[in-house]
Amino acid sequence: MTGNADIGLIGLAVMGENLVLNMESRGFTVAVFNRTTAKVDAFVNGRGKGKKFIGCDSIQDFVKSLKKPRKIMMMIHAGSPVDAVIQELLPLIEKGDIIIDGGNSLYTDSDRRVKELEKKGILFVGTGVSGGEEGALKGPSIMPGGNPAAWNSIKPILQAISAKVQPGDQPCCDWVGDGGAGHYVKMVHNGIEYGDMQLISEAYFIMKHYLGLNNQELKDVFAQWNKSELDSYLIEITSDIFGKKDEHGEYVIDEILDSAGQKGTGKWTAMNALDMGIPATLIGESVFARCLSSLKDERVKAAKILPGPNASESSKHFQGDKKQFIEYVKNALFASKLVSYAQGFTMMRHAAKEYGWKLNYGSIALLWRGGCIIRSTFLGKIKEAFDKNPNLENLLSDSWFVDQLKVAQTGWRQVASASLLHGIPTPAFTSALSYYDGYRCPTLSANLIQAQRDYFGGHTYEKLGGKKGEFFHTNWTGRGGNTHSTSYNA
Amino acid sequence: MTGNADIGLIGLAVMGENLVLNMESRGFTVAVFNRTTAKVDAFVNGRGKGKKFIGCDSIQDFVKSLKKPRKIMMMIHAGSPVDAVIQELLPLIEKGDIIIDGGNSLYTDSDRRVKELEKKGILFVGTGVSGGEEGALKGPSIMPGGNPAAWNSIKPILQAISAKVQPGDQPCCDWVGDGGAGHYVKMVHNGIEYGDMQLISEAYFIMKHYLGLNNQELKDVFAQWNKSELDSYLIEITSDIFGKKDEHGEYVIDEILDSAGQKGTGKWTAMNALDMGIPATLIGESVFARCLSSLKDERVKAAKILPGPNASESSKHFQGDKKQFIEYVKNALFASKLVSYAQGFTMMRHAAKEYGWKLNYGSIALLWRGGCIIRSTFLGKIKEAFDKNPNLENLLSDSWFVDQLKVAQTGWRQVASASLLHGIPTPAFTSALSYYDGYRCPTLSANLIQAQRDYFGGHTYEKLGGKKGEFFHTNWTGRGGNTHSTSYNA
Repeated sequence: MTGNADIGLIGLAVMGENLVLNMESRGFTVAVFNRTTAKVDAFVNGRGKGKKFIGCDSIQDFVKSLKKPRKIMMMIHAGSPVDAVIQELLPLIEKGDIIIDGGNSLYTDSDRRVKELEKKGILFVGTGVSGGEEGALKGPSIMPGGNPAAWNSIKPILQAISAKVQPGDQPCCDWVGDGGAGHYVKMVHNGIEYGDMQLISEAYFIMKHYLGLNNQELKDVFAQWNKSELDSYLIEITSDIFGKKDEHGEYVIDEILDSAGQKGTGKWTAMNALDMGIPATLIGESVFARCLSSLKDERVKAAKILPGPNASESSKHFQGDKKQFIEYVKNALFASKLVSYAQGFTMMRHAAKEYGWKLNYGSIALLWRGGCIIRSTFLGKIKEAFDKNPNLENLLSDSWFVDQLKVAQTGWRQVASASLLHGIPTPAFTSALSYYDGYRCPTLSANLIQAQRDYFGGHTYEKLGGKKGEFFHTNWTGRGGNTHSTSYNA
Repeated sequence: MTGNADIGLIGLAVMGENLVLNMESRGFTVAVFNRTTAKVDAFVNGRGKGKKFIGCDSIQDFVKSLKKPRKIMMMIHAGSPVDAVIQELLPLIEKGDIIIDGGNSLYTDSDRRVKELEKKGILFVGTGVSGGEEGALKGPSIMPGGNPAAWNSIKPILQAISAKVQPGDQPCCDWVGDGGAGHYVKMVHNGIEYGDMQLISEAYFIMKHYLGLNNQELKDVFAQWNKSELDSYLIEITSDIFGKKDEHGEYVIDEILDSAGQKGTGKWTAMNALDMGIPATLIGESVFARCLSSLKDERVKAAKILPGPNASESSKHFQGDKKQFIEYVKNALFASKLVSYAQGFTMMRHAAKEYGWKLNYGSIALLWRGGCIIRSTFLGKIKEAFDKNPNLENLLSDSWFVDQLKVAQTGWRQVASASLLHGIPTPAFTSALSYYDGYRCPTLSANLIQAQRDYFGGHTYEKLGGKKGEFFHTNWTGRGGNTHSTSYNA
């Protein structure tokens, strides 16, 4: 038995609802199902009323309502719920059917699911979907990967609902790669999103406290920045946020608890970077900054006893041209952002090598160019950089990046240095600058670390200008044996 | 059949060799075995000649040579080799026998092995052993955890070979806790070790380049510091290192490639911190700094094109009192170290909660007080802090720490700020300071991050001064639905 739904979606939380409204608005008939079936009724009789939705009260009816090959998209909690729903679906579907997981699943899970389902003839796709509520509704960025045999069937729907960028209405949706590649790229996207948000919050903090700007001025600064090279969704909504008042005429921003949630993909990105040995310091610091923010009670207590300059009184130390310093803050934000994206793309380059994916980095930049949370005009420059050199080792080395850094690095240093002098925490600005200075430093101080490791653990070292893989040991103390470490690593 | 060896050891790399020499020197008879049996012969006829060693050519003979209950220690590569050797041992040993894994195993593996072997009546102990070559030989720090029923049998041997601290010859070896607790504490120890080494290397870098100190002067500075609150093994050997010349009269330090290895435990610590949501920024940055150092070829290329001040020429910008600035560098190193240990102990506190371990933090500080790589007089202050308040939330809040930070924070800010101005990468100094300023900041800028998350994802937020767990949503744009996010997290 076959129904006439073009696609079905399981999971009617905010992203799921908005995605199906988007699909329906492009002419597709969509079957919807949710574990708590009351949600299905509420949706079909609410926002979905009078539209081409088939509300299903059981997963059996849901599967029956779909055209073959069936296309079933899940927007549910990542983790075991995804496996549970797959298990429920398996007896009801048949070879050639397609399951699409649009949640924030760990890429290794998607990789495993592609392989497991391929054995049963089911085509599994793990896709990143970014854009939040509004993106899902009007056109998100979509990053599908998995079983490539699924792509031709789902391409018309996914590209139709995705964001488009000009010129030429290019869809922000294209095949990313095999296995877990789609969710991997989405994971890095989210890590970068954590970074972007942290950077903006640091710019806010320093302008609020050190320069003493009020919300209206902050709104204007961000609106101004949105007309510059910083033009992006997050800068745009930040400007909106500073202007938003509640029903009593109070600024909403000042009522919100300074304790940021963090679950899942940001920390996965940082953990994966550590695991691969890729210095993605900005994402790491951004995740840790959220962790620190969540220790509100501890911080309030610590503030009373730990010595140091008071950030909220730092404006009395500010001397100089406020307008100039706002420009410096913009420099710091932009330059740190360049570092963050360079680190993120380096991660993808290494992951592609590790997992055997063929990733097109320019195309990935284009996927993020519209629809998603980190969309920005800047991503066009990343695409250009990879168009010029598809094998670019590090984005920072691209000539456009170099030119930007020439301008931005002076102000960046001023802001980072003033923050540290005046007790203003800007972990992402300062960490990005340390990375930048480390990356362009031909000789670092790790020779001392190697000397220490050889001293206490017999780890041996290579020599400057020596042959790669030729190791030396110094008997630093004149004592101890001649057995070198082979099993102990520090 | 039973032999007369008090304990047996498998794995004759540098740590294993030195450990058994240590055991033998305390009066124990030790059976030794190694997969490559030539190593056994070489050892018994070499460093072990004329001593109470029983060299074994097969694992069967090795097991037969042990007194019951058998005590078998492994010093082999962490990971699958440990499981493989356990599988080889199982048919040969009997209930009540004890297997001790002294390698750098992941604590979750040790946790699993304790449980698996308990079912077979075998008592498994996962123990951290720190001290490098020389520590293993003369007295390492030993951190055993696992099946507590093993402790009484192995305590006399492990405490005999461990380092001792004064007053009262207290052994740097005591039972840490159940399951994987021993290897967990060792993992954090290693993370802290990464941090200490990175901090020292940053102090070196800034004094070499910004102050223009030569190796002899560096040797003297570190020797001087070793007589202060920084008194520690790593500072001591660093001073030695700067004095060491090769056979041609050249300083060894200047010949070593600035590319630091990193495998295993440092990155595990940072990954675990991320996973638990504990901001251990200093360890994270230290691991990433090693990753960055290993990109030598990229850095040499980048140095030619990326704009910014040249760290190696920064001494021409230095104005002021060199002696005073050396004191500032010492402040920066010491204050950052306080942050690092505070972060590490916070990790242990959370892990204990998560895994149900009862950890004695003062006792752990004492275990590290002697024998191991991070041994220092400072650890005595940590012990005192936990003696005063066993439930201390964060070491930074202890009065001794507060007093130190009062003195050190000014110089710390000078050094961090100068580094960023002059292009000198000091990621750990600056990251530690950002954490410190964040931790003592009662109101951070995470309210903006929460506003953004609510704007684009309907994530909701709590209010300042509001009830915990009461969440609000603002319809920022006046558009979109009223369904809040339940499945999408960013």
